[in-house]
Amino acid sequence: MYEKYVNLSFKPSRNQLITTLHLEASNIKHAAGGVAAESSIGTWQEVTTEKSYMKKLAATVFSMKKQDKGTEIKIAYPPELFEEGNMPNILSSIAGNIFGLQELKALRLLDIDFPKSIIKSFKGPELGIKDIRRLLKIKKRPLVGTIIKPKLGLNSKDHAKVAYEAWIGGLDLVKCDENLASQKFNKFETNIKETLKMLEKAEKETGERKIYAPNVTAETKEMIRRAKLVKEKGGNCIMVDIITAGWAALQTLREENQDLKLILHAHRAGHAAFTRGKYGMSMLPIAKIARLIGVSQIHTGTANIGKMESGEEETQAVNSFLMSKWFSIKPVFPIASGGLHAGYVPKLVSLLGNDLIIQAGGGVHALGTRIGATSMRQAVDAIEKEIPLQEYSKTHKELKVALDKFGYVR
Amino acid sequence: MYEKYVNLSFKPSRNQLITTLHLEASNIKHAAGGVAAESSIGTWQEVTTEKSYMKKLAATVFSMKKQDKGTEIKIAYPPELFEEGNMPNILSSIAGNIFGLQELKALRLLDIDFPKSIIKSFKGPELGIKDIRRLLKIKKRPLVGTIIKPKLGLNSKDHAKVAYEAWIGGLDLVKCDENLASQKFNKFETNIKETLKMLEKAEKETGERKIYAPNVTAETKEMIRRAKLVKEKGGNCIMVDIITAGWAALQTLREENQDLKLILHAHRAGHAAFTRGKYGMSMLPIAKIARLIGVSQIHTGTANIGKMESGEEETQAVNSFLMSKWFSIKPVFPIASGGLHAGYVPKLVSLLGNDLIIQAGGGVHALGTRIGATSMRQAVDAIEKEIPLQEYSKTHKELKVALDKFGYVR
Repeated sequence: MYEKYVNLSFKPSRNQLITTLHLEASNIKHAAGGVAAESSIGTWQEVTTEKSYMKKLAATVFSMKKQDKGTEIKIAYPPELFEEGNMPNILSSIAGNIFGLQELKALRLLDIDFPKSIIKSFKGPELGIKDIRRLLKIKKRPLVGTIIKPKLGLNSKDHAKVAYEAWIGGLDLVKCDENLASQKFNKFETNIKETLKMLEKAEKETGERKIYAPNVTAETKEMIRRAKLVKEKGGNCIMVDIITAGWAALQTLREENQDLKLILHAHRAGHAAFTRGKYGMSMLPIAKIARLIGVSQIHTGTANIGKMESGEEETQAVNSFLMSKWFSIKPVFPIASGGLHAGYVPKLVSLLGNDLIIQAGGGVHALGTRIGATSMRQAVDAIEKEIPLQEYSKTHKELKVALDKFGYVR
Repeated sequence: MYEKYVNLSFKPSRNQLITTLHLEASNIKHAAGGVAAESSIGTWQEVTTEKSYMKKLAATVFSMKKQDKGTEIKIAYPPELFEEGNMPNILSSIAGNIFGLQELKALRLLDIDFPKSIIKSFKGPELGIKDIRRLLKIKKRPLVGTIIKPKLGLNSKDHAKVAYEAWIGGLDLVKCDENLASQKFNKFETNIKETLKMLEKAEKETGERKIYAPNVTAETKEMIRRAKLVKEKGGNCIMVDIITAGWAALQTLREENQDLKLILHAHRAGHAAFTRGKYGMSMLPIAKIARLIGVSQIHTGTANIGKMESGEEETQAVNSFLMSKWFSIKPVFPIASGGLHAGYVPKLVSLLGNDLIIQAGGGVHALGTRIGATSMRQAVDAIEKEIPLQEYSKTHKELKVALDKFGYVR
């Protein structure tokens, strides 16, 4: 039943959606066909209700390549299977029930090639890399930022003070942590009131434009209310936890952003629940989905550096995609974050390039926020001036403090 | 740094949120402390920005029990860490970054004990088990249903005809499949127009109330528009893919349902991406989250029967929770679905009880929809009359057709 969904001589047309998956199973052809069947028009039985007019909607496994472990398969989907502009619907097919099939031993969605018709049904980012660089007047260097730490517990005034110190120290971007929303110790309204006041002050004092990314993650309508409030109060950016909030709400927020024109900073808290195991998906499809819906910047990994698990090649592949030309969908800033400090900056830039936002939390605030912030800015300045970090630290004491504390990682 | 978040003599108070996790790591204490730190107020460094007033917000690992493989740990969270009524925020802490920590070899969230203060900040189901039984006038037996098959491709008229045949055959509930939304071959508007017309006809002819669960999964506002349309056209139920739509949108839909008072049928397409591997969570926390937000019925598993992977004990634990008393949150119907047929019904009921919705797709439509539907209804009728299935099939020919085709599984 399932095996009729496998046809290795099938040539997909350019208008089809193609997925690439890593599959392990004792009967590969049966399992691969099962994945194609259950994600298009088939089930475990021939049904009497099938009509001849629907046969053209079947998905087809058209490639099966044996790997050292398991098999890489490719499936072609006719675009008519999906509702255009409806990401949850598309994912319910191509990344839905398939992971639960009894006969699998592993199944990971490695990549999705969206056809033009589906790409055109989404808006992509309102603001992309170029817009953000224009706002900040930063031509080439990576942006540097911090996460306010401790991640939870600071009251609104202390929270705003930390942000101020970070901007004054030289950072471009300050963000809330992924689990700050509107808790009693720091309500959203007072948080943005206090912190945006400090943003204005820091901009005046440094003569530089700065970004503040308050976390609006909440139920959809409340999230939109918070986004509007940020706009109203003069903010330029919002952050959203795209995995725990979910795709339907992200689409809604993106729609609103047509008018708000805020930078949409995407945090991926929770992704490793499905990017790290034998079942689930890689970061690349998540990045594609997020870019298509329309985030401006997204956490993608740190290329095997820091406190969070993330492979070097995977981060490079994801980041390259985010920056690449993709029909009319604007390029998006990748964000490296998690256990970073000034001593990692040259390696990160050599691995991941200049179109990158480098964020350090503990690596900034462990030194005293202002010192830590300055050390990060000096690290990117040194790269721009093509001066080795240790050389530069001789005349830049904050960078020296950072290197003395954390070391320099080549 | 991380280890100070472990205190095995700590006794959590009743107002704390408790998580239970399966952890594998080379240094258990360090990794466990890392999970507690990164999900509350800590990071990989001591930071100079910490204030004494926030120390009470730290999470604490208060139990570590070595298992055959790995360790079961329990973490207590002060409720002030979370924004009440904001599920994405709560999950960004307790099921967010933790899965990505470098030092882990496995991390699964097995259970969440929500304290009363958080439970009371959610509404739970508008309609629960009792409301649905009252609507259908079915006192005790399990409900039986089907998924319209083929899952995609039928036009609206043919789709409605399949639904009609299923209801006439004796089924209580007909649902769309998880990947039907509003595709060109069957637009949402014509789908509900045609199918609700058939619902009315089937109700008149059978004298029974019937449920139709059209899939409203989409961007949040569109999802709500579709839900309102269902209400307007006389429908009594909507289905949503809770994982691919996401928690923020589900909360928004639940808010709207305060007025709409529709049965909220929750499909879990995509769950196995994180319920099946070494990282992620079990079905129990997902069921708790969904019940707390307010679904009326949710797919939970088939107790190791059928085409989808699902353990017997896990399904039993999840279903027991859904039916249990839980402050003022109404009990919710568990749904068993995926590769089922009439021959499995007695075993399912003996394993999972009467408060259960049993759905068969291929197991109905492979026989011809009406025959398959009748076979399912006869199977639950036989149980209610306490007559063995094979005995009952001697006088009930549709049941006999099913048992002859699929066999009888004790």
